[in-house]
Amino acid sequence: MQEKVIRLTGSELTISQIKEIAFENAKVEVDAEAMAKVQKARELIFELDRRGIAVYGLNTGVGWNKDKVVYADRYDAYNKNLLRSHMIGVGPECSIPETRTIMAVRLNGFLCGHTGVAPEIVEYYVEFLNRGVHPVIKSRGSVGEADIATLPAIGLTAIGEGEAYYQSQRMESAKALELSGLKPLKLGPKDGLGIVSSNAQGAAFAAMGVIEAEQFIERYRKVFCLALEGLNGVLDPMDESVNRERGYQGQMESARKCRELLKGSYLEKPWEGRALQDPLSFRCQSAITGSVMDALAYLKQQLKVELNATDDNPCLLPEEDRMCGSPNFEPLTWVLAVEMASTGLAHMSKMISQQILRIGDPGFTKLNRFLTPAEGAVIAYGTIQKTVSYLDTENRMYANPCSLDFLSMAGHIEDTASNATMAAANMRKIIDNLYYMAAIELMHAAQAVDLREIPQLGEGTRPLFESYRKEVPYLDNDRNMSVDIQKTYDFLKSL
Amino acid sequence: MQEKVIRLTGSELTISQIKEIAFENAKVEVDAEAMAKVQKARELIFELDRRGIAVYGLNTGVGWNKDKVVYADRYDAYNKNLLRSHMIGVGPECSIPETRTIMAVRLNGFLCGHTGVAPEIVEYYVEFLNRGVHPVIKSRGSVGEADIATLPAIGLTAIGEGEAYYQSQRMESAKALELSGLKPLKLGPKDGLGIVSSNAQGAAFAAMGVIEAEQFIERYRKVFCLALEGLNGVLDPMDESVNRERGYQGQMESARKCRELLKGSYLEKPWEGRALQDPLSFRCQSAITGSVMDALAYLKQQLKVELNATDDNPCLLPEEDRMCGSPNFEPLTWVLAVEMASTGLAHMSKMISQQILRIGDPGFTKLNRFLTPAEGAVIAYGTIQKTVSYLDTENRMYANPCSLDFLSMAGHIEDTASNATMAAANMRKIIDNLYYMAAIELMHAAQAVDLREIPQLGEGTRPLFESYRKEVPYLDNDRNMSVDIQKTYDFLKSL
Amino acid sequence: MQEKVIRLTGSELTISQIKEIAFENAKVEVDAEAMAKVQKARELIFELDRRGIAVYGLNTGVGWNKDKVVYADRYDAYNKNLLRSHMIGVGPECSIPETRTIMAVRLNGFLCGHTGVAPEIVEYYVEFLNRGVHPVIKSRGSVGEADIATLPAIGLTAIGEGEAYYQSQRMESAKALELSGLKPLKLGPKDGLGIVSSNAQGAAFAAMGVIEAEQFIERYRKVFCLALEGLNGVLDPMDESVNRERGYQGQMESARKCRELLKGSYLEKPWEGRALQDPLSFRCQSAITGSVMDALAYLKQQLKVELNATDDNPCLLPEEDRMCGSPNFEPLTWVLAVEMASTGLAHMSKMISQQILRIGDPGFTKLNRFLTPAEGAVIAYGTIQKTVSYLDTENRMYANPCSLDFLSMAGHIEDTASNATMAAANMRKIIDNLYYMAAIELMHAAQAVDLREIPQLGEGTRPLFESYRKEVPYLDNDRNMSVDIQKTYDFLKSL
Amino acid sequence: MQEKVIRLTGSELTISQIKEIAFENAKVEVDAEAMAKVQKARELIFELDRRGIAVYGLNTGVGWNKDKVVYADRYDAYNKNLLRSHMIGVGPECSIPETRTIMAVRLNGFLCGHTGVAPEIVEYYVEFLNRGVHPVIKSRGSVGEADIATLPAIGLTAIGEGEAYYQSQRMESAKALELSGLKPLKLGPKDGLGIVSSNAQGAAFAAMGVIEAEQFIERYRKVFCLALEGLNGVLDPMDESVNRERGYQGQMESARKCRELLKGSYLEKPWEGRALQDPLSFRCQSAITGSVMDALAYLKQQLKVELNATDDNPCLLPEEDRMCGSPNFEPLTWVLAVEMASTGLAHMSKMISQQILRIGDPGFTKLNRFLTPAEGAVIAYGTIQKTVSYLDTENRMYANPCSLDFLSMAGHIEDTASNATMAAANMRKIIDNLYYMAAIELMHAAQAVDLREIPQLGEGTRPLFESYRKEVPYLDNDRNMSVDIQKTYDFLKSL
Repeated sequence: MQEKVIRLTGSELTISQIKEIAFENAKVEVDAEAMAKVQKARELIFELDRRGIAVYGLNTGVGWNKDKVVYADRYDAYNKNLLRSHMIGVGPECSIPETRTIMAVRLNGFLCGHTGVAPEIVEYYVEFLNRGVHPVIKSRGSVGEADIATLPAIGLTAIGEGEAYYQSQRMESAKALELSGLKPLKLGPKDGLGIVSSNAQGAAFAAMGVIEAEQFIERYRKVFCLALEGLNGVLDPMDESVNRERGYQGQMESARKCRELLKGSYLEKPWEGRALQDPLSFRCQSAITGSVMDALAYLKQQLKVELNATDDNPCLLPEEDRMCGSPNFEPLTWVLAVEMASTGLAHMSKMISQQILRIGDPGFTKLNRFLTPAEGAVIAYGTIQKTVSYLDTENRMYANPCSLDFLSMAGHIEDTASNATMAAANMRKIIDNLYYMAAIELMHAAQAVDLREIPQLGEGTRPLFESYRKEVPYLDNDRNMSVDIQKTYDFLKSL
Repeated sequence: MQEKVIRLTGSELTISQIKEIAFENAKVEVDAEAMAKVQKARELIFELDRRGIAVYGLNTGVGWNKDKVVYADRYDAYNKNLLRSHMIGVGPECSIPETRTIMAVRLNGFLCGHTGVAPEIVEYYVEFLNRGVHPVIKSRGSVGEADIATLPAIGLTAIGEGEAYYQSQRMESAKALELSGLKPLKLGPKDGLGIVSSNAQGAAFAAMGVIEAEQFIERYRKVFCLALEGLNGVLDPMDESVNRERGYQGQMESARKCRELLKGSYLEKPWEGRALQDPLSFRCQSAITGSVMDALAYLKQQLKVELNATDDNPCLLPEEDRMCGSPNFEPLTWVLAVEMASTGLAHMSKMISQQILRIGDPGFTKLNRFLTPAEGAVIAYGTIQKTVSYLDTENRMYANPCSLDFLSMAGHIEDTASNATMAAANMRKIIDNLYYMAAIELMHAAQAVDLREIPQLGEGTRPLFESYRKEVPYLDNDRNMSVDIQKTYDFLKSL
Repeated sequence: MQEKVIRLTGSELTISQIKEIAFENAKVEVDAEAMAKVQKARELIFELDRRGIAVYGLNTGVGWNKDKVVYADRYDAYNKNLLRSHMIGVGPECSIPETRTIMAVRLNGFLCGHTGVAPEIVEYYVEFLNRGVHPVIKSRGSVGEADIATLPAIGLTAIGEGEAYYQSQRMESAKALELSGLKPLKLGPKDGLGIVSSNAQGAAFAAMGVIEAEQFIERYRKVFCLALEGLNGVLDPMDESVNRERGYQGQMESARKCRELLKGSYLEKPWEGRALQDPLSFRCQSAITGSVMDALAYLKQQLKVELNATDDNPCLLPEEDRMCGSPNFEPLTWVLAVEMASTGLAHMSKMISQQILRIGDPGFTKLNRFLTPAEGAVIAYGTIQKTVSYLDTENRMYANPCSLDFLSMAGHIEDTASNATMAAANMRKIIDNLYYMAAIELMHAAQAVDLREIPQLGEGTRPLFESYRKEVPYLDNDRNMSVDIQKTYDFLKSL
Repeated sequence: MQEKVIRLTGSELTISQIKEIAFENAKVEVDAEAMAKVQKARELIFELDRRGIAVYGLNTGVGWNKDKVVYADRYDAYNKNLLRSHMIGVGPECSIPETRTIMAVRLNGFLCGHTGVAPEIVEYYVEFLNRGVHPVIKSRGSVGEADIATLPAIGLTAIGEGEAYYQSQRMESAKALELSGLKPLKLGPKDGLGIVSSNAQGAAFAAMGVIEAEQFIERYRKVFCLALEGLNGVLDPMDESVNRERGYQGQMESARKCRELLKGSYLEKPWEGRALQDPLSFRCQSAITGSVMDALAYLKQQLKVELNATDDNPCLLPEEDRMCGSPNFEPLTWVLAVEMASTGLAHMSKMISQQILRIGDPGFTKLNRFLTPAEGAVIAYGTIQKTVSYLDTENRMYANPCSLDFLSMAGHIEDTASNATMAAANMRKIIDNLYYMAAIELMHAAQAVDLREIPQLGEGTRPLFESYRKEVPYLDNDRNMSVDIQKTYDFLKSL
């Protein structure tokens, strides 16, 4: 198999490329023109220093220390100190895909040519990705006005300090450099700041949140369609004309995909005893899921800006032969979008919860209570609703915006924040819970279909049902539910 | 003065038209083509009834009662009962501009031609708006899957029940009809459902939230720029190139407008003792405010769909000679956007709070502590920070999404909700609090400018300062702050 | 009728006395021994000043200005400035009962003898209460480390500034003093601080919250018992032995009172078709309500400490001939209890919501759906559930702790807060919403009882049913529900 | 060493005994009188069955299935099914101390004699604890109206299903039974329900929360006192008289313990340049921490009831020769107390955060900024504040009550909930974060003390400082902060 290599230019990084870099270990290469920009910015740094201009993070301290001078002979020492003192994260540690994404995002940011770091630093990010050197990054600490609390880990590994994974083995960074054939870097002016002053962790987590959310929605949609067959539900709400007259993008796409999955299903034909209308959790599914898709579309649009633009401060402007203080590390636009997506996903959590409650209710299905094969003898899915409630309650908690809660710090120079990384982490916790919930819905859906003696299923739901039943059989008697939940969760994640 | 008349077509209603209808008492007229669509949908209703098809809300009950048949000879009685029993709001009552917006939104929705109400009903909405008949609507009750809890008030007035304002006088609806020269309406099939089954209240509140938020931001921006002059702050973060390299729309527009307001200001020139960088609350102002503008842009885009499309269920499709069950009353896409805007506005609340704290701090201004004219003798703005904290705390509360908290109701047919009206109401409460906070910032900003002996102000800030000082003079000694706050709030609202 | 006069001693103020002062305009008198303590503390103030000791708020500024000296010849001017500059509240204004409670609480605090204010000031609080001089206090502004933002209004009225109600008429304070036969006060050292540095507003609001919560619970209990009769529910969970074996105080008392209200009810006898167990919202009512009673008992115990102890800083210790810096204004113990009570009340909100949903459900009552007198013809209580959901959602919002959200202020001298007043205000908003919810439950309960053709009711529920039916008749046909809700709310408030 | 054995009676279990059972592997034995009660209740079960009375969970199904009959010949099968179908937890798994606590709590509950399980079952809980058989319990799933979602794991192990740890080795339950010399149990009537219908998990988690909170507070107090020495702070707020005049229990105890720790400290003497008053975060420490201690005292009092009383439904009353439906599984009183404690702990989180910010600020310490040993050259504790903010934000999230968010389940029989286990889990997450925060404060405190050239320390703080400096040396140059944080966290946990 030929190796995938992704060319980075500073302006074209996509979320699907991130997926390849993170999960498929794609390698990266850097566009020559972009590298020239990096070089030009570096030259400007030295020129400004020569001119004796005070440059934030070059010949001055950072944060509250912006009033302290840094002299040229202390550049290496100062920048090392900057990395060490900014290394303040607490666990849990980032996974390797997370670390890869963080490095790729920062790397692409360098290529915009507004940072001023040494080109060698840029090259080390390339090498780390391509040789499999993955610094150990503790994930908690950044307040999301540049992830200065967590990004130093990459710089530390580059100078041979801290820890890293090399080829999935954890070791001292110095050892990882040696094994991978790299030497510890020397740091020049603004290198420390350039390494740490970026939203790379938050943006990486948000990008992974998008990837996971979209993947979840596609998988969930199949579960829903099977559940609708389990319910003997109504197709009207997915009617093409009806959705077109409304005009919401997500809703239309969502309904269209459901229609495709359910093509050929017995639901397309009239059926005795089918209700005139289903409960809202079923009836509005395409609209609710569609709303989340709309929110994700907005998030992706705004995240694309972050991934392909400078978030440096100061911002070097080589074409104008100057640098300038900048607010470009402020990520709030997309952080608000992340939190909107979380609220949307929590609505899916409510919707799924209610679908599960309805599908266990004979009033709606005309099947046995809790989908038991034998009332009185087998309890079946009676108690499992509590797990659904538990997970939904957690999701409700994670759906409150955390971006608003922060301290005014650093002598009140840093008196606002976005909590970008926590916002994205919370979004991803919701998604993981949703997988458990969708798993429980799938258990119900398949059971209901079985209790209906497997009517004609749709083009998309039939294969789902069949492959699922190979993993988890029909519930003919009570068994350890916890085992079934975990198996179904794993099944869904592998779809 | 010629009267403003706005032509409604069902597809072109804008938020600025809503502003005119709500606040400037603009009249409305209905496009003939749109009215023809209303007529066609009505004919379809009767045709379907003739064919004996069960139509939700026509010849069946609604909600859990969808399994109950309604016979033709009971249409008037049934529809009256529907209005009465759905009249479940509790106070506070909607203001007249709110009521006008609600009627305009529902009216435009009718014109999409998917409702099936009698054309007379449509005409009554026009007449109510044009003659100044404003039904009394209690604002709390809707859970935002169509505002069936609050919209019946309009229908009740049309049949001569309940209460209404006529020319700003409150009276029995029957009296209001009489005085305005209208007769009580008779109700036919689906008229009740057609009147109540719409998101008109939620959409109206959201539209007003957008109007108010945008107005606030424009006014606040001036306050900020004066505060920056009070601080002797840095212009770098509003640099055109710097913002262009980042690329966020809101941030760029925000920075551009600040540059215009500050044109000619002493901040454009170097100044002894000015800091290298300001605290984030000042430095990131254009980015943070810009993020809210980005969020509002998304909200407006999605709200535009709601304002100009059907939210009816069932949805009549006269061109296809059928009607169909529909999820089109699901407003979640824009409700999520409302809540994102609220979170964004709450970030502005934090930012304004921090700006106020900083501008009272000699460490940042090199002026007297709390901007007193005489340390030791005059306390000045020392305690007022507590009011800022109080209001910010309320805003934090309103910024949590309420859309996620609802009951599963109506025999669990209505098992999801969006709380659209509450979400929009919360957004507007934040904005009102923000006016108080911006007022307090203006008090500080003007005082700081005075303490600097009024340096050269910008083209936009000079007129602000001068007109404000006519309302509220320089604080040369302690006085009742509560009075100053209220005067400044009123000043800002009148800008 | 003889006038009620309550003697205040600084150590025995109860919540039921507060009720009399606030709502029944009871007068107050001051214990002579307590007044002697006030005098002794005042003498100490002068003595300390003579000794040249720096006393916070006497001969120094307050807050961040604690490093500024205040000279004796400026005491009056300084203390006036202190009142004016601390007058920072924003609306809404306190009601007269609220203002009376605030004054009574502060007055009782003075009597502990640790404040050091002039005895004349103490007397003015007495006179204000007894002559009906009620300063206009804007309610929002305090962060709950002493209510220095709102209490100055009382001091301002005493010096003839600001506004006040006199005999329910609003006027300039100077006028109110004149009409009530009082003269403007002169202020001496520490008078300003003594007036403002107290948790009187927060404690007053909390006390009123307790009064209102306990009143609500008693009224609600009757509604519940009638609803249980409407449901044809099970008495088991109120069994004396069962509750005794558990041992929670609130639950036992709650169950006992229900047994009394239901004495003689048909529920005491076996009845065909009665369920084995009711839904938890009914079954656990005595336990859930009891939990709130337990929480209120804790709140009352802790609030009693606040109402009868010093919250001054500095704290004068005349017996030890010294004064000392103090943290005694920290009210967190009872603020946490207020927020616990709010969470508890929000649980009652959930419970009531669910009871209403169940009692409209034939699956539980075997009565008509939504308690209609005629299925198909009358809709009855189908839609009203949405109002319940709306109110419950608001309650959910108010149940989150607001005490944790505050700014670090005043040069970071005031870097923690409790938001005591807001916490108590939120608690009271929940209670008001609960009245609407209980009203809606009463509507259902009475209707269900009617539909059962009024079986034998309990000793406590029969009178409730009969008096209620005089206000709001049986629902034999749909009518404007909003009117019924308001009538029932008023009925409950007047019980 | 002699083995610790704790005698359980059903009415005297304490939190300190739980500590011994959980963490020190204390064994248990059962009081003979209590065992007799268990036996009597069991006999009543059989007697009631003989009388043909429908007993919930004996000869009927549970939850919505309460209308289904269970026949005697199916008791074993039915009860096994009950355990299997109620086994619905999802990860993470309980730790062994958690599992031990859960078993001990349930065991003590059995001994109240109101459950009706077979005495053999009770004996198995004893044996599991004493032989080290620890069933694998997945922690998430219970909604806190009895932990029926998680407790079946114990029953399953007893019948030889599922997994368990034996002597810290994970294995099939059947194997664990064999190795420990036990045989799989047979289940009789009500055994399944008796095993699962209890709040043992929630109560166990809450008890552990109390243990951990109290332990944390003791450790934190030492850190605070050292920090006060680092700050050169004021002792006034801990003055005995001042605190006595206020009268809050927690505050008085808290201040007293601080006085003891600081005995002999240089803070007891006047010192040039010491402030008149410290920021509230220092000044109110004893009051704020005291408020949490007050809240914990209430929690302990209410939890003691839960730990020593029946939470069974139905409740067997052998002395009255009957059983009765019961609400005794409702744990809300103590769950509200858990959430109050969480809010209180989150206030400590705010307070600690602010203390850290202040102690890094020369304006308060007159030491170098961020406690650097060399301004300009060493950055020291500048960035670490961000980690503090991150953790505090998480704590803010966990402090919102989760108890209010739940689904109405099981055919709406289970329509309220308390989320007891989640509430307790959230409390414990706050405590773990607080350890990290206290660690960061300790880093600052020790550094400040070093920068002051180690003045005379208190009797309690001197040993702390000395032992800490053996683990983490003075910061003379920047180093990897993340390492220091973790070391200091471990140090604190081992105190």
